[in-house]
Formats: sequence, C-alpha cells, structure tokens
Amino acid sequence: MNQPTGNTVKSVAIGIIGYGTVGQGVVEVLQKNAREIERRCGYHLQVKSVARRDWSGTDTSALPFTCVTDPFAVAGDPAVDIVIELAGGEHPARELIETALKNGKHVITANKALIAKHGEALFALAREKGRELTFEAAVAGGIPVIKVLREGMSANEVKRVAGIINGTSNYILTEMAQKGRDFADVLKEAQALGYAEADPSFDINGTDAAHKITILASIAFGIPLQFDSVYIEGIDALTPEDIQDAAELGYSIKHLGLAVRRDNGVEIRVHPTLVPQNALIASVNGVMNAVQVQGNAVGNSLYYGPGAGKLPTASAVVADLIDVVRELNLKGEDRLTEFGYSEVHDRSSLPVLPAEAFHSAYYLRLTVADRAGVLADITRILADNSISINSVSQKNHRKNNGHIPLVLLTEVVNEAQMNRACEQLAALPAVSGAVKRIRVENIE
Amino acid sequence: MNQPTGNTVKSVAIGIIGYGTVGQGVVEVLQKNAREIERRCGYHLQVKSVARRDWSGTDTSALPFTCVTDPFAVAGDPAVDIVIELAGGEHPARELIETALKNGKHVITANKALIAKHGEALFALAREKGRELTFEAAVAGGIPVIKVLREGMSANEVKRVAGIINGTSNYILTEMAQKGRDFADVLKEAQALGYAEADPSFDINGTDAAHKITILASIAFGIPLQFDSVYIEGIDALTPEDIQDAAELGYSIKHLGLAVRRDNGVEIRVHPTLVPQNALIASVNGVMNAVQVQGNAVGNSLYYGPGAGKLPTASAVVADLIDVVRELNLKGEDRLTEFGYSEVHDRSSLPVLPAEAFHSAYYLRLTVADRAGVLADITRILADNSISINSVSQKNHRKNNGHIPLVLLTEVVNEAQMNRACEQLAALPAVSGAVKRIRVENIE
Repeated sequence: MNQPTGNTVKSVAIGIIGYGTVGQGVVEVLQKNAREIERRCGYHLQVKSVARRDWSGTDTSALPFTCVTDPFAVAGDPAVDIVIELAGGEHPARELIETALKNGKHVITANKALIAKHGEALFALAREKGRELTFEAAVAGGIPVIKVLREGMSANEVKRVAGIINGTSNYILTEMAQKGRDFADVLKEAQALGYAEADPSFDINGTDAAHKITILASIAFGIPLQFDSVYIEGIDALTPEDIQDAAELGYSIKHLGLAVRRDNGVEIRVHPTLVPQNALIASVNGVMNAVQVQGNAVGNSLYYGPGAGKLPTASAVVADLIDVVRELNLKGEDRLTEFGYSEVHDRSSLPVLPAEAFHSAYYLRLTVADRAGVLADITRILADNSISINSVSQKNHRKNNGHIPLVLLTEVVNEAQMNRACEQLAALPAVSGAVKRIRVENIE
Repeated sequence: MNQPTGNTVKSVAIGIIGYGTVGQGVVEVLQKNAREIERRCGYHLQVKSVARRDWSGTDTSALPFTCVTDPFAVAGDPAVDIVIELAGGEHPARELIETALKNGKHVITANKALIAKHGEALFALAREKGRELTFEAAVAGGIPVIKVLREGMSANEVKRVAGIINGTSNYILTEMAQKGRDFADVLKEAQALGYAEADPSFDINGTDAAHKITILASIAFGIPLQFDSVYIEGIDALTPEDIQDAAELGYSIKHLGLAVRRDNGVEIRVHPTLVPQNALIASVNGVMNAVQVQGNAVGNSLYYGPGAGKLPTASAVVADLIDVVRELNLKGEDRLTEFGYSEVHDRSSLPVLPAEAFHSAYYLRLTVADRAGVLADITRILADNSISINSVSQKNHRKNNGHIPLVLLTEVVNEAQMNRACEQLAALPAVSGAVKRIRVENIE
C-alpha cells in the first residue's frame, strides 16, 4: 500500500458487507469508472470479498470476487484493507464495524441509524486504532453534504442547517401539493411504485430524517451525536387543506430537518414546515433532497441532488473510499476527524434545547363559530402570550355548519408560550376541535 | 508548527497580499470566527502582515498586524507560514505567488484569471516545492464547488458541468426577465447600485465566466487548463424579445459556463442558454451563482450560493486556509493534488473541441416575409442540413411591414451544420436581416 511510483499502480483490497441495491451499485461504479477512479486515487481498487446472507439465485462463479455468507469473515479478512458496511440496521452492523476497526481496517458506512445512535463509541474506537470511519452516504445520498459542512463551511459559524433529507416524504408532499391528493392515497401509490418501503414508518414519521439531522447538527456545531434529544414530527397529519392554505399565503409545506444555533444552545427538530414559495428549497420536488446551510460568512448556500438510489448512494460511498485511499499513508493524528474538529477541542458542550425552548413562527388554523367577538377573543389570548400576529384570514367560502376556518401566521414565538396560547384557544367556546399548528421557517 | 498537544495551541502566521474588500473580509472572518476556526484546525491563525499599495486614510496603528506597502515583503517574509494572494490580475500576482512558493510558503488565492491562464506553471512549482496552492475562492465565491468536484464527485465520470458563475450577468438577465427591461438600461442601474464594476466588460462579455469554467473543466475531466480554447459569448446581444420568446416556449435564458464530455473530447463554452423553466437552475436569480454537476453515478446535483462579496469570498479563502493548516504536517507526496488526480496519471489528453464540433440544440429566430412557401423553404434547408425541428411558432401579433418573426427550436445538432444552415437561411430572399441563434441546454 505504498504510494505508487513510476507506472506501477498498486492495488487496495476492498471488502463489502451487504450486496443489496447499494452494494451492487458500489461494485458497478467501481467497475464502470475504474479508470477515472484510479486516476483520482492512484491505486487500483479491487473488490476482494463480498458478504451476503443468501446468494441463492445468483451465479457467484460469474462474479470477480469471493462470495461469502458470514459478514464477520469479511470484517476480519486479513487480505482486506478497507471494509464497506452496507448491512444496515444497528446489529450486527455495529459489531461488524468494531471487528473491522480492531483488525486495522478503515471502514466506510452508509448506515445513518447506526452513526446517529452509536457513532460516538465507533468514532472513539476508530481514533484509538488510527483508522477512518466515514459516512458521507448516510445523509442525502449523492450530495456530498457531509464534506461540505465539515470542510467547505469550516470558516463559518453555522447558524442553521435546513434540509429536505427524506425523499419519500418529499415525494408524497409534492404529489399532495401538485395534485391536491390525500396523504394516504399518495402513500399507497408510492408503495406500489417502489418509492416508499413496504414498511414506510421511518420515512413517514420522521425517524429517518431525525437520524440524518442528528449527524448534520454534530458536524455543523461540533456537538456530540444526540439522537434521543431530537424533536420529531412526521407528515402523516398533513391535509390537502393545510397545503392549500399555505399556498394562498405564498408558502410551500416541506418536511425539514432543522438544526438551529441559538445563544443558549441548539434546536434540532424534524417537522412539516412552511417555507416561502420563492425560496429555492421550495422548488425541490419529488424524491430529490436539498440541504440549505446558513453560515455567518457565506450567508445562504444550498446543496441539491438525489437523496437515495443505487448509483447516487454508491457515488457517495466510493467518494469516501477514494478519500480514504488518498490518505492511506497518513498517520492517525494527521487524519481529519469525523466531524472536522481538532482533537484538542473535540465536542462542544452547547446543549440541545428542549422543545419548550424552541423559537419558531407558526401557521395556526382554528375552526371558529361565525359570530361577533370571536376574533377579539383569539387575538387577546395571543397578545396575552406575547405572540405577534403577521396575518389573519377567514376562509368564509369554507363555512360549514355555522363554523369557518381561521388561518393565522404568527411572528417568531417561544414554543412554551405557543403551547399555552393553543390550550387557551382550544378552550374558547367559539373554537371547535383542535388548533392545527405548523411551524414556519422564513428561509431565503 | 507541530500538532498541538494538551491544551497548548500553536500558532500559524498568515500574510495577506491585498487589503481591498476580500482582504478585509478575510481579516474579519478570522477575527469573528476565531474560536470556531481554532476548534476546526487545531491552530491559532494569526494574521502577521498585510500588504496594500496605499494605506493613507487608514489608522494602521489600530490594526493588529504589520502594514506594509511592498507585497514582495509579505511573499518573502520568513515569519509568515501561509500567504493569501488577493492582489488580483496577472502581474505581479504571478511573481508574488512564485516568490511565496520558493520561500516555502503555502499559498491561497482567489485569482481566477491567474489560475486559468498561468495555473499549470504555478501548480508545477508548488509540487516541486512540496507546497499547496489552493483556489476555492476563484470560482463561485462562497460555494465550495472546487472541493465538491475534486473530492465529492470523485467516484463519477463527470458528464457535464453547467454553471451560473457570473453574478453580474445573472443579475442583469434576471432584471430583464422579471421587468421586461433593456440590457443597456439594467446595466446602467447595476453600475449605479455597485453590482457591476465601473468597467464591466469581463462580466458582460463572458471572459470572467470563461476563466471560471476553464478551472472547473480541468477538475471535472482532469485536463490541462486551456483558457485559450474556450468558446465565449457574452450577454450584450440579448433582447427582451429573446427572453419573452423563450418564456413562451417554457424556457429561461441564463448565461452559462458549460463543460461537456463527448466521446471525442470536451466542449468548453460560455454563452447565453435557454434552460427549461422547471429546472432548478432556472430559479437561480439575481447575483446568486449555481453550478450543476452531472455525473454518471450521482446523476444531477446542484450547488447554490453567493458567487461574490466580501464575506462569502472570505468564507472560501478561509476554508482553504483551514484545509492547508489541517495538512501542515503532511509530506508533499501525501497532499491532494490541485485537481485531485494522482501524479502518476496527471493530466488527460482528452482534447478541447473546436466550436465547429460542438453539439447543441438551438433556438432560432428569423424575420420572414409573410407569404406562402416561406416555411417550406426554411424547413427544407434545415432538413438538408440534418437538423430536426422540435417546434415552430409564427409570431403573427408582431407583424411589422409585411414581416413576422418565426421562432424555431431544434433538436441537438452539430455546430458546423448549424452554421451552414444559418448562412443558407440568411440568403433566402424572404428572410430579412440576420438569424438570431441561442443555444438550448435541456438541463433537468
């Protein structure tokens, strides 16, 4: 594994754990772009062994690598220099990575749940062993947003990261917005088309986006990974009515992962969000992903591309691989750390704020009795809770049984105050049913 | 300059040549974000000396660095570790960088003209001296697009780079499109507002964008810098009529830098371009920049942000600085090369194609006599030159003196054939005046 000299190009041996869509994509990219990749890293990258639970149905004799069923055989293979973990899930993925690191291998993973939940322990082990554990493919697929945040934005104090980082929910919201369709209806179709998993709960309920924003927040702010502190809302409660009301106010509804720096800590939250229609992120449709980074030097920048899929995800995995190979000769202490912070400083103690401490503007929708004095009662409650109103509109054309929808946009308000106000609003005799609340982020 | 140990943070001495807008921005970012930057690179970055032609009017005693007027005093200062060249222009910027490299300093520059025209010689010198010469700020200001192409996209064979990489011309086109205004009118206002230089020729005639696409093409394809081979058109010939016609066809006109890989070479070109209105790049307005990268693994990805300005440009300069400092302990051969290709492979011999070999779809506008048989003559000429027509529309409401505008969209066609066809079209008795041609790029 020395630096190549003259015309002799040395070889690096790769082991892959998991041969599903992404694993096959990695092999395809390494074959198809072999010449370009060798030009870029100076080594020939040779897939030596691949582990898959079940090879039946595959003509393994036609594959130019050793096919095994025991993933630990790859993780511990003395002939393998670099292990790519694409098994997914928490176990045995964690144990596989630990085995690989302990056996002196660099590791590349696309496993967002694993990094978000067990990354700290795994990075500590990697440092101890002087090996790299990289994870570009864990967030936003083909978009190199980990590298952008860790290196490209390094001169900035990052103020906010706002990302469409789950393609399935963005696809569903796009269909709902463009065709006025119901959530359940679009979801069923997305599953039939293969855009949504058979069990789409992690996409729909925000868990997948929460894994990803956990990782982005740690890089942006240099804080420990704290998945358990992320506030999470999914998209399942959104109705065509919400989307229509937002559009009338000049907003689109997107499911965002947000990491916001405040003076007293950081907010990490995942929820449906009204964003101005003329913001570039509002034009990100279908299964595409985009991450907007606001820094105190750069201002607003945005990174857009496919967030999933065979070759886009493989693109990120192989870019990590090339980075690792380019740095094969480095000593452990000369390597960039996982989040790009110097080891003497390591993690910041900036706390993750609880939901009650959040600040956000709000869209509120109430169903109110159509009689005099109601609006006065409502605005009084908001004023008493120090909530300023940006706009109010009564949807008289949707009058039903003597009740009409009332839509309000508020200025930025503290969440605890909003909770209190909403309780008081719901208790008004003129207000029928629950108060619908969706946060607003005035992204440029 | 050893790796910091324990709580002792070592210092790196910076020299800055040029203290205009960007130079002051770099000092501001280094001061304002000192703590974050130290967390990220593990060193305290100390601006030691700054060169400016004329310090009169500035209270230099209030500045925390040595103020000099001779830029070579900074380039050769034994106490300086890293030099930031912000002098601009070709000379003496080139000699300053050479002096700094020969004196063992790493160099960071924002000088796109210098890199595009003299980069090869400067990179060769940097390699010989085992020092880095970095240039993220030379293209698209605050957007880390150099890093994205060199590292983030490394698994891809890049098929196309398409960028809005000159903010002034994008501002002018945006105003023309949104307000139906004339080119000259908007330019005058842009100059008054300070968005355009007193001498805006390099922005308007495409030279600035050509410098930048030269650099991006070299990274995307691993070819030598070949500024002299770039095909260049500015925006000064565009009229509100062109923009209106394009809009009616579902297109916006953007001034793009394009680098396109073909089987027999690469096209590097800068010109006004029709792009589909629903492509994300069509929504990039005002002074903002965006670069779309199409790779054979990732598909389409886009990078958006401010392309110029004090702090965005400083963000890119300081990101380079942090990268250099993170790698201070590396041996020369362990450093990533300027375009991210291994030294054993170095530059590709893929030729830059001459304009006659380009392939592009076209928007054509002819002013034709309103009589029978004209369209037949025109479509015959196009067919004879193997040009397929995508759409034709006669603008009867713009009839003037018995002549009407005829707007055609063609399929992708070879440029030499299009040249021949346009000569033949212009020679038709029914065609009055020149044929207006604007290229179309069907970006997704």
